[in-house]
Amino acid sequence: MHYQTNPSDSARHVLSRVRALANRQSRQAQQKFWIEGIRAFVQAFDAKLEFDTIVHSEILLKSSLVEKLARKLVAASVRRVRVTPEEFRAVSMTTRASGIGAIVRQSWTAMRTAEAQCGLAWLVVEQIRSSGNLGTILRTAEACGVGGIVFLGPHCDPFDPATVRASMGGIFHLRLVRTSHERFCDWARSNAVHIVGVSPGAPPVWTALPRCGPIAIVLGEERQGLSDMARRMCQTMVGLPMNGRVDSLNVGVAAGVVMFELARRRSGEPIGG
Amino acid sequence: MHYQTNPSDSARHVLSRVRALANRQSRQAQQKFWIEGIRAFVQAFDAKLEFDTIVHSEILLKSSLVEKLARKLVAASVRRVRVTPEEFRAVSMTTRASGIGAIVRQSWTAMRTAEAQCGLAWLVVEQIRSSGNLGTILRTAEACGVGGIVFLGPHCDPFDPATVRASMGGIFHLRLVRTSHERFCDWARSNAVHIVGVSPGAPPVWTALPRCGPIAIVLGEERQGLSDMARRMCQTMVGLPMNGRVDSLNVGVAAGVVMFELARRRSGEPIGG
Repeated sequence: MHYQTNPSDSARHVLSRVRALANRQSRQAQQKFWIEGIRAFVQAFDAKLEFDTIVHSEILLKSSLVEKLARKLVAASVRRVRVTPEEFRAVSMTTRASGIGAIVRQSWTAMRTAEAQCGLAWLVVEQIRSSGNLGTILRTAEACGVGGIVFLGPHCDPFDPATVRASMGGIFHLRLVRTSHERFCDWARSNAVHIVGVSPGAPPVWTALPRCGPIAIVLGEERQGLSDMARRMCQTMVGLPMNGRVDSLNVGVAAGVVMFELARRRSGEPIGG
Repeated sequence: MHYQTNPSDSARHVLSRVRALANRQSRQAQQKFWIEGIRAFVQAFDAKLEFDTIVHSEILLKSSLVEKLARKLVAASVRRVRVTPEEFRAVSMTTRASGIGAIVRQSWTAMRTAEAQCGLAWLVVEQIRSSGNLGTILRTAEACGVGGIVFLGPHCDPFDPATVRASMGGIFHLRLVRTSHERFCDWARSNAVHIVGVSPGAPPVWTALPRCGPIAIVLGEERQGLSDMARRMCQTMVGLPMNGRVDSLNVGVAAGVVMFELARRRSGEPIGG
């Protein structure tokens, strides 16, 4: 095991790095993000993410699984810094600090190398205001077999700590692309990807959603819905019929209904089922 | 208009009542709850809820619609208390205090008087831990035409301020019932209501959900799922196929997918659509 020569110095250094990662500019400059908790640690390991530094408080957490994985990572030259429970709590973003966290490299896919037929569909996001909503969307996307998410423009950061947490591991598996509207449209055109926008009042998703071929589903912002630019790139619009006196859905719920309806239509479900 | 003889006294009194309503015991003892914001105020008025007291800061909010509705309510003997912006902010649960709120009477339906075929379905909840998740479920339920919610046992309070807020008005329209597992089962049996539980790993919702007849959909708790008691009362179990490496969904998303799938199956959607 690599024991630090001066534990308090290296702890201080790593903790200030973790704190910096709460800030979007730092995350982007470093192309790193912070994960914490046993579940996230194990999932990130299983997904073969590139670990930068492990932050471990062995007083808070004694776990033979975490110890085993951490040793493997250390053997592959990942740094491990031991911190006190107080130090861990000072950077933890959860109410009950687990004692294990890591600084991990962000993984992005370039638009031009993205496969058109990748899992169930591509999901396309311009702007989702709530980082929790975005995390829930990533969680649902991965659960129902979506291949990846395209972020149009600079608005959303999937590596926001609240998004990472709400994604429940979804962020570790999905392909993530950031590009412009124009480049996305070029890619869709040259790969024959059908672009479907989700919009209230459009024909119901279960009659208007194409049954086959590569597809990209575009989600709008919580209040404003799709931007004009996003609307113009869509070949089809689908909506969810509102039968009550509440006329809107949470964007995470709407996205879930559309994704699972696509899964149903492509599952080989018998006609009339 | 009823001007208070001693505004500061009545303001102090009403504000302490509003504060008390943040606490579940007080809400239950008084059978009241607190709503705030123009949207909630107008929706509650339209839904003909019984207003107890209007709390208004006219410096924060000048709205001719609110003024019109408030006058109608005052004419029907509802008390209006004017407060300062500071007083309003002190009880407001939103980041941007709107200036309009009200203490409103809770409205409950008795199990024995509940119609079996009420809208799309009945939704049944034992325990949802997150008040935000519960609010989202109420919002989706009302949006897709669910008739009402049955709360089994004492765990969930739909009049929690965070639930009310997240329901986006859903709470004002849905029939709400609180009863025991036994009484619910008796009611379902005597009204030929088919009880369907949502559970991971069960046959997919789109093949297992009955196509007709009155139906009640039972949702489980976020982590534990359905309790044994809830499980035993279900005649059918449905699930959502998980195709990715994330093996669970947010309960609000899962509930939304099931409700909209039921709406699809009962919408007269053409066979094979």
